[in-house]
Amino acid sequence: MPIESPRRISLGVSMAGLGYHPAAWRHPETPAGGNMSLDHYIHMARTAERGLFDMLFLADGVGIRNYDEPKGAQQRSAGNVHFEPLTLLSALAMVTRHVGLVATASTTWNEPYHVARKFASLDHISGGRAGWNVVTSHTDMEAQNFGAATLPPKDRRYSRAEEFVEVVRGLWDSWDDDAFLRDQASGQNYFPERRHVLDHEGEHFRVRGPLNVARPPQGHPVIVQAGASDRGRDLAAATADVIYVAAPTLPEAQEFYADVKGRMAAHGRAPEALRIMPGLLAIVGETEAEARAKYERLQSLVDPVVGLAQLAFSMGDLSAYDVDGPVPLLPEWRQSRGQLMYEMAQREGLTIRGLFLAIAAGNGHAQAIGTPAQIADQMQEWFEAGGADGFNLLPAHSPGGLEDFVNLVVPELQRRGLYRTEYEGETLRDRLGLPRPASRY
Amino acid sequence: MPIESPRRISLGVSMAGLGYHPAAWRHPETPAGGNMSLDHYIHMARTAERGLFDMLFLADGVGIRNYDEPKGAQQRSAGNVHFEPLTLLSALAMVTRHVGLVATASTTWNEPYHVARKFASLDHISGGRAGWNVVTSHTDMEAQNFGAATLPPKDRRYSRAEEFVEVVRGLWDSWDDDAFLRDQASGQNYFPERRHVLDHEGEHFRVRGPLNVARPPQGHPVIVQAGASDRGRDLAAATADVIYVAAPTLPEAQEFYADVKGRMAAHGRAPEALRIMPGLLAIVGETEAEARAKYERLQSLVDPVVGLAQLAFSMGDLSAYDVDGPVPLLPEWRQSRGQLMYEMAQREGLTIRGLFLAIAAGNGHAQAIGTPAQIADQMQEWFEAGGADGFNLLPAHSPGGLEDFVNLVVPELQRRGLYRTEYEGETLRDRLGLPRPASRY
Repeated sequence: MPIESPRRISLGVSMAGLGYHPAAWRHPETPAGGNMSLDHYIHMARTAERGLFDMLFLADGVGIRNYDEPKGAQQRSAGNVHFEPLTLLSALAMVTRHVGLVATASTTWNEPYHVARKFASLDHISGGRAGWNVVTSHTDMEAQNFGAATLPPKDRRYSRAEEFVEVVRGLWDSWDDDAFLRDQASGQNYFPERRHVLDHEGEHFRVRGPLNVARPPQGHPVIVQAGASDRGRDLAAATADVIYVAAPTLPEAQEFYADVKGRMAAHGRAPEALRIMPGLLAIVGETEAEARAKYERLQSLVDPVVGLAQLAFSMGDLSAYDVDGPVPLLPEWRQSRGQLMYEMAQREGLTIRGLFLAIAAGNGHAQAIGTPAQIADQMQEWFEAGGADGFNLLPAHSPGGLEDFVNLVVPELQRRGLYRTEYEGETLRDRLGLPRPASRY
Repeated sequence: MPIESPRRISLGVSMAGLGYHPAAWRHPETPAGGNMSLDHYIHMARTAERGLFDMLFLADGVGIRNYDEPKGAQQRSAGNVHFEPLTLLSALAMVTRHVGLVATASTTWNEPYHVARKFASLDHISGGRAGWNVVTSHTDMEAQNFGAATLPPKDRRYSRAEEFVEVVRGLWDSWDDDAFLRDQASGQNYFPERRHVLDHEGEHFRVRGPLNVARPPQGHPVIVQAGASDRGRDLAAATADVIYVAAPTLPEAQEFYADVKGRMAAHGRAPEALRIMPGLLAIVGETEAEARAKYERLQSLVDPVVGLAQLAFSMGDLSAYDVDGPVPLLPEWRQSRGQLMYEMAQREGLTIRGLFLAIAAGNGHAQAIGTPAQIADQMQEWFEAGGADGFNLLPAHSPGGLEDFVNLVVPELQRRGLYRTEYEGETLRDRLGLPRPASRY
């Protein structure tokens, strides 16, 4: 059951890689091989739990997603190898007791039966702490690992995603909560009328069911989404429990927040049934100067070829241009975001180097660099001014960025009454204040 | 590195469900809800590790595979819901240190990139203890969860399986063992010439790679297969590290063993590179009478409708016939095995009830019911007479059947010098005496 309590900030932490900053892996406090070290992830998970976080969040791609462009950039980046999320989170379920476990799985390159099963299983293993971050994938590199040359068009991906989520939810309801009698004496194992065959037939899927896993402890594991497009917002308003969004400024966060919450009524949902959690890259110091120094330290470690690669992902390869000259206007951008980045460089008078350094840390997300009070101020403002229900913390480097936040910012938020002082409830839904979905049957 | 030692019996244990006997779940010592209880599986895993087993083995289907035929049978069976194997074994990796972790994954209803990733990840999580049981699936019920009405024909499934395993192996070699430098000072993360793009294009798959997981600790997780057909034997001789086979008698085991080991030379493999492990349903008692009483206790719990369902799976629905009358000759059998069962009933003069009781316990596998010495005798005979390199223990009921075996039979095997007295080596390959595969590059 959801717990009645004053409205409080929800917190997740992005666990992917060795930190969100592209130079994170080069930071002397970062374990350089941590992306393939179970001990690193155990330490991250336990630190988040010590900080009473709602959830660990594992972004994911089904392939290596950084282009080797300019040539030589890839071998100088850390984001090439890592654990598969569902296996990793199942392991972390055993060394944590409270924190939620959110894994990304693509609806474009998976089958609903597998996804329903694995998340139901993780929910049982973890005692109701599983969440599924629904993505449609966004690179041709992933497509090429699944027999396709290119990513399907966005409309097609979204229509598949909508049906995919519907099928998964239906499969989770295959068994009523009280389906099993398990009476050894009489030999009656379950009540047949409490088992349901889905028999789904849609545009993208035909799935019979039932699922071969009992109904998850949470009814349905928590559904997380991140789409910011018009179609993504509608999908989230209709089906998401949590939205993770990139909003660099409060006005942008407010616009998104009001818009998505406003769309929920049309789907018969109350605004409280959805937690909006923008990404937040926080770098905290005892003093503002210390925090700035931490930031500059990381910035100084940005390899120019890696910086150019970060631009190339959205804009295209700029390595033929003077890195200390102006950002050129290319005939076309690789992603629509390229135009926004070009306009930002124009507006702020940035060179190519200036542009990649400007986006290095947050890369489109909000940044907060300062003392615990300054960071808490920014979070409180967003939380109280209709910009956020919580935040997905993006540690600049891991585990240091998370440790700093837990040691310094969490106590400040608690002093202000904005954050829990102990875990309440049992499941991830309880902690997020979300209702347990009733079965459709 | 493989450990040089006298030839010893390898042991796995089948963890699926609540035991191999169809009445296992009704046994008073069985936790009736254990199939969805993590504690039950933790206890099983730790018991197997206490018994120095090589591996836990999780059979699996991607759907509920027992027909409700005769009507009402399904609700009286326990094999309807259970954990998904890769999530469960990732969790169990954290509460065990030595025992191998073998999960089933179907090549018919999966994509090689996902399978390569998940098993590589489990191998990293467990420190080199992962194994993959390669199956092609065998029911239309599973097909219907993936958009198909029926299972693809066997030839098609096998040709896909062969290519699938080849692609997975290639993906595991994406990164050389020494690919990563991770030099924080210079910014060099890996050596580009030690990263390999698979670029596979075959009849069934186009997969570019590379895998986004470092090379597994074992090089390749252990490959387990179970196919007994001519094509299955060839595939195993070419690629398997372990074979799990149903061989009810020693002559049948010897025929299989000699045939498959004999086929290996044509694939350039030494016979020692493959461990043949027949299934063994063992019921052990301090005295033979006690063992027989345990067996009869389980037999007395067989629900007739569940017994008929077990026959229906291979033969067809016999519920219209007198259960205490003769086994009828049907115009056609559901599976080729139906004819063998009919012939067995003719030969041994069994009624329908007699037939389902006769196959209830072992269901085509070897049985050993007796004292520790009698069971060890049977295992030793098979091991020394060219019938087996080890056994996959099928506990009649869990955890009792496994506990009995570990407490009573393992010490007897150790006394005879046929079984380890402590774990040797680090990885599952070490324990099975199998070499670590070199990279193809």
